[in-house]
Amino acid sequence: MLPLFRALLVPSLLLPVIPRLAADATDLRGYTTASSKVERDWETRFRAIPEPARQRESMRILSARPHHVGSPYGKQDAEWLRDQMASYGWQATIEEFQVLFPTPKTRLLEMVSPTKFTAKLEEQALKEDPTSGQKSEQLPVYNAYSGDGDVTAPLVYVNYGVPADYDELDRRGISVKGAIVIARYGGSWRGIKPKVAYEHGAVGCLIYSDPKDDGYAQGETYPAGPWRPSDGAQRGSVMDMPTYPGDPLTPGVGATKDAVRLDRKDATTVMKIPVLPISYGDAQPLLAAMTGPVAPESWRGSLPITYRLGAGKAVVHLKLAFDWSLKPIYDVIAKIPGSQYPDEWVVRGNHHDAWVNGAEDPISGAVAELEEARGMGELLKQGWKPKRTIVYGFWDGEEPALLGSTEWAEQHAAELQQKAVMYLNTDGNGRGYLDMSGSHSLERFFNDVAKDIEDPETKLSVWKRRQLATLLAGSAAAKKDARSRGDLHIDALGSGSDFTPFLQHLGIPTLNTGFGGEDGGGIYHSIYDSFAWYTRFSDTSFVYGRALSQTVGTAIMRMADADLLPMEFGDLSETVSGYIGELKETRTKVADKIAETNRQIEDGVFKATDDPRAPLKAPKAEDPAPALNFAPMDNASDQLGRAAQQYEKVYAAAIAGGASAAQLAQANAILKDADQALLGPKGLPSRPWYKHLLYAPGLYTGYGVKTVPGVREAIEQKHWKEADQQISLVAEALEREAALVRKASAALQTAKPIP
Amino acid sequence: MLPLFRALLVPSLLLPVIPRLAADATDLRGYTTASSKVERDWETRFRAIPEPARQRESMRILSARPHHVGSPYGKQDAEWLRDQMASYGWQATIEEFQVLFPTPKTRLLEMVSPTKFTAKLEEQALKEDPTSGQKSEQLPVYNAYSGDGDVTAPLVYVNYGVPADYDELDRRGISVKGAIVIARYGGSWRGIKPKVAYEHGAVGCLIYSDPKDDGYAQGETYPAGPWRPSDGAQRGSVMDMPTYPGDPLTPGVGATKDAVRLDRKDATTVMKIPVLPISYGDAQPLLAAMTGPVAPESWRGSLPITYRLGAGKAVVHLKLAFDWSLKPIYDVIAKIPGSQYPDEWVVRGNHHDAWVNGAEDPISGAVAELEEARGMGELLKQGWKPKRTIVYGFWDGEEPALLGSTEWAEQHAAELQQKAVMYLNTDGNGRGYLDMSGSHSLERFFNDVAKDIEDPETKLSVWKRRQLATLLAGSAAAKKDARSRGDLHIDALGSGSDFTPFLQHLGIPTLNTGFGGEDGGGIYHSIYDSFAWYTRFSDTSFVYGRALSQTVGTAIMRMADADLLPMEFGDLSETVSGYIGELKETRTKVADKIAETNRQIEDGVFKATDDPRAPLKAPKAEDPAPALNFAPMDNASDQLGRAAQQYEKVYAAAIAGGASAAQLAQANAILKDADQALLGPKGLPSRPWYKHLLYAPGLYTGYGVKTVPGVREAIEQKHWKEADQQISLVAEALEREAALVRKASAALQTAKPIP
Repeated sequence: MLPLFRALLVPSLLLPVIPRLAADATDLRGYTTASSKVERDWETRFRAIPEPARQRESMRILSARPHHVGSPYGKQDAEWLRDQMASYGWQATIEEFQVLFPTPKTRLLEMVSPTKFTAKLEEQALKEDPTSGQKSEQLPVYNAYSGDGDVTAPLVYVNYGVPADYDELDRRGISVKGAIVIARYGGSWRGIKPKVAYEHGAVGCLIYSDPKDDGYAQGETYPAGPWRPSDGAQRGSVMDMPTYPGDPLTPGVGATKDAVRLDRKDATTVMKIPVLPISYGDAQPLLAAMTGPVAPESWRGSLPITYRLGAGKAVVHLKLAFDWSLKPIYDVIAKIPGSQYPDEWVVRGNHHDAWVNGAEDPISGAVAELEEARGMGELLKQGWKPKRTIVYGFWDGEEPALLGSTEWAEQHAAELQQKAVMYLNTDGNGRGYLDMSGSHSLERFFNDVAKDIEDPETKLSVWKRRQLATLLAGSAAAKKDARSRGDLHIDALGSGSDFTPFLQHLGIPTLNTGFGGEDGGGIYHSIYDSFAWYTRFSDTSFVYGRALSQTVGTAIMRMADADLLPMEFGDLSETVSGYIGELKETRTKVADKIAETNRQIEDGVFKATDDPRAPLKAPKAEDPAPALNFAPMDNASDQLGRAAQQYEKVYAAAIAGGASAAQLAQANAILKDADQALLGPKGLPSRPWYKHLLYAPGLYTGYGVKTVPGVREAIEQKHWKEADQQISLVAEALEREAALVRKASAALQTAKPIP
Repeated sequence: MLPLFRALLVPSLLLPVIPRLAADATDLRGYTTASSKVERDWETRFRAIPEPARQRESMRILSARPHHVGSPYGKQDAEWLRDQMASYGWQATIEEFQVLFPTPKTRLLEMVSPTKFTAKLEEQALKEDPTSGQKSEQLPVYNAYSGDGDVTAPLVYVNYGVPADYDELDRRGISVKGAIVIARYGGSWRGIKPKVAYEHGAVGCLIYSDPKDDGYAQGETYPAGPWRPSDGAQRGSVMDMPTYPGDPLTPGVGATKDAVRLDRKDATTVMKIPVLPISYGDAQPLLAAMTGPVAPESWRGSLPITYRLGAGKAVVHLKLAFDWSLKPIYDVIAKIPGSQYPDEWVVRGNHHDAWVNGAEDPISGAVAELEEARGMGELLKQGWKPKRTIVYGFWDGEEPALLGSTEWAEQHAAELQQKAVMYLNTDGNGRGYLDMSGSHSLERFFNDVAKDIEDPETKLSVWKRRQLATLLAGSAAAKKDARSRGDLHIDALGSGSDFTPFLQHLGIPTLNTGFGGEDGGGIYHSIYDSFAWYTRFSDTSFVYGRALSQTVGTAIMRMADADLLPMEFGDLSETVSGYIGELKETRTKVADKIAETNRQIEDGVFKATDDPRAPLKAPKAEDPAPALNFAPMDNASDQLGRAAQQYEKVYAAAIAGGASAAQLAQANAILKDADQALLGPKGLPSRPWYKHLLYAPGLYTGYGVKTVPGVREAIEQKHWKEADQQISLVAEALEREAALVRKASAALQTAKPIP
């Protein structure tokens, strides 16, 4: 579901590029010198195993037919994956849930005025792409969890359909009340568009793919090139996942056969209005027929028309009806039991369901996972005995709503919170740079892994390549950090893939990764995301697939075998301190903006600059922004920083042989809760399912992360009292984290004085 | 010729909006209290005279038929203007020059591969626009001063065709050597495009109007709306005017019948390669047929194609031949002799020639000028006797090369440098905000005039409206200045209209103005710049035409009647000091960029981030940038600041009655040279015709100004030695200016001590 990481990495000052100290390169974090050597040997053996040709063949099989939720081939893929895992020596099972997954019965979109036009709503089968003609098995173009509806109304163009776009419409006197909005893909996760439209009174929503974003403006269209053809459209979920993901009828609990279910009308995450995604071939006649003011420059796409806002002469009829029955989903769960800490689990997953054939999304990631599993199976035969239990999941139902991962995580919540030491997620793969995202207590760990993986194009380490990309395109501050800091910053996680229930609901330390940035295309969630497309335009030789297996396998093994869990809190503390700086800056910006606008209103600026031929309403005056009390957060952040520094001293002594096996075990039991300490008991305002106080998908960005979300969104929405309350809650969480770190230090503390 | 000022004005800090002191509002600068009252009375009477209906009727007449250089109707317009001026009581004559003005004999553009396509090169006559069908009199679509040529070569797309665009092509391994480039309008003056193409080895140049910039992307196209239709094309000159404007054969001297002329092959300003402007209707098949790498995102326009760089399969044949004969031009010169200072001239002009019918460009400005002249004629009858001689010019041949103004200015250079106290230029008019540009010693003067003119839409003063627009959209620094500074900043002048010979060659204090910003359209230099278009889409009621007559008439009268010329040097000194700051910052940026790039090369950044499927060459390492010695300029600027402060004290005493008529006369004789002191005897590097050391059109921007051009362009081009030399020359000019100001103070100094 996650659109592959494409944008170049973000991060100039003239400081020397400092290589990590040689000692670090030798001893793995969390390992004694002796066990480090052993581990490095196993990892080296492991990285020689994954084969591009096997990934290619697995992709061919898994993407051979459409395999969405409830499809025969989806079940077949799950069984095949289970059998493969078993054949590699894993304990493999399938776990089933029953979930609400609507599929379309009626889809009609027609323009009724000023001229008649009926949208095609269909992607063309291509002779160059053998699987594109599997019509009888394909899910048609639609948005899952759209409302049923039959509406006829004038069109209003809302750009990306985010709240700021409605402010622009409002200044032009345009309301969407009673209208059908047409939004373009991009600028936010798709589910935000109908949600905001509904909040503003719209009765229907169309979402189209503008050729500027992934069509002919970007390059040759499929099948000549990799980009979206004129009838290509993007399927996808519009469930309100920033409120809670997973089965809409069973929030917080596993959707087992006998689970207590909400009535559908009480499921708050199901969209209330009909929503339909369309191709630019279908969108162009509608947009061209619109009247009303010309759209602002930044709203214009690449169609050869004048983009107008409406509402005017263009009236459309949208009729959608769905089959709302429950469907089964099949999660594949496979384990290697741990030899020393069987009740500490290292969990890893990638989904197996797709919107159609899904060669890229998600099979390119699933085949890497499969090769990791095969590699570890080989090592088992050679005598490798991981200390911790390794759990590999292939999730079903990710596309509609992270169904498989969420229901499994909810079903096993207590056990996971007790046992899981890490969740590592992937979701497809491409060519280019390593995406490094996740919990910042694992930043050091992830950097160390990335330094050991070779980039197949440049033969540099994937870490080095990412560092140098930052030195090319990063901000001055990012360049400075990339040159001077031992660790590259990893990104915080929002949503859009299966890490969400683990990290944000359960507080399992989490990483997410994949390669991308050199693999553009416009086949996302279409019938053209196929084996034919992938093997012509993406990681055609599967060398990045191998690199992904090597990266993830190394990380999983290194976490599973560590004497001491490799959490490090200096990077976390530095990151949190950066977030606090951002929050203060955000408040100042919001406050300045209010003050400036109020002043402009007083000065008569809007009246004086209004063009009678293109009138704009003046914004409304607002109450000035109060100062916020950031002191509790600053103090807690300082505590965490001091605790992290002390822990590093204790850690060094402990790993040098100063700590007993019992002490290590005790510390491990503490460290695995590094993210659970950051959960808020009541979760985030208006969405208690999301409990992590540092990371969440934005309520109005959808996939995009909001760090310190309770505070940040309160500031952005000018809920000042809530902002102050949330600051206290985050401060308490940071104090809990500092206490956890001090507790870990105490557990490791030897009688010997720390030098 | 100048594309009308459209962009919103540029200028946040929370400082009070300080109104100018009441005393300033009462006494006009350069006037005693008594003469101020008299002047205000005459000005008030004047501003009641200009009539929108008369401007409309004059526009109808002047734009009734095509009136380009050498056309029968062009001569008829000149004679009509002369007769009108005479009928208003002015001494009106026509002054004739003989200039090189090429007109097309052969125009052929065809694609020869991969498919055949012959460009139409013609704009369609429209029934909605009566003058659009005057085919036999229209100049066809072409670029004046293109070379003759017959070339067949592959196409390369060069974006705007500025030097930075060639750097991008070079990194992609694409050369234009032997190719025909296709550039889009915008990003620089059009003449820069073939010049840079030629410098890089291209054999031909096409320039097309992308619909993103002034076609359907902006709004409804003509005749339904004001924007450029698919066969609309932009004529225009491609003479190398940043080297010198005017007749290419007579640089520096008037192109009289008997002038000594260069051989055409020695005229450096005539383009060496064939150049042709085309419509987007003609461009689309060519661009769509191109192969090669996909153009970078910022290079893409709004055509429904993949923009590609070439060179590849698209090969075109371009054949152009011109009639290179001399043509006559007719400047209309009209005078009102001064009563007290007949040998001090206040000069004002607007051109009368057009590319075709030219209702907007230039007639909307010419009809305002005519109404000013009629108004002053009325005042003469009522007994008004301007102290200084007023000279009104209607220039011919502005479109091809500022021919009429330049030849007249060169022919009368000595007399103008001796007598002219100001040149005020307009070049068309529209709706919206007052453009305020010119010599910064007139910044105070221009601000005072703008405070006395009412905006017809808002009934605020045009000054206030401009101030509030800055408070809406300006930068933080611009907002702060707009709130706290008594005077709004006026813009420095580059080129693109008839002020250039007066300001930049002769050093006459200059202003340029017009209304714009609410009058978008795409008819610039096409057959659709017509009475029909203007009266439907631009200043349809001519109320901004009246406001322009009021603004300019007030400025001319106020300058003509002043007891003491109203130059003020505090604003100039502040502006110069700002320029010095910018230059230092520019050097630092260039130096940092070189250092950063060298470092990136050393670190291996380019190699590490190169995508083998879209390879990019690494930039070349460069010598580090040396420090520059700005001290001479800083010192001279300080001198100027002190002299300006002292002058204000002396001025206040003098105007309060402390100075005799002889003293005032002596000071006037000094002050009129305020810009001549800033001329460099040798002019600018590589272009000695341009002598002003503070203002010039950029060598690679064309119209866009480069302030302190000798220094700034040396820094931008990394000519460090030249930069240091130019700093000294500018410092000397600033010292001359400071000396001039001190001399004016001395002339006004009374025996009484200054309080």
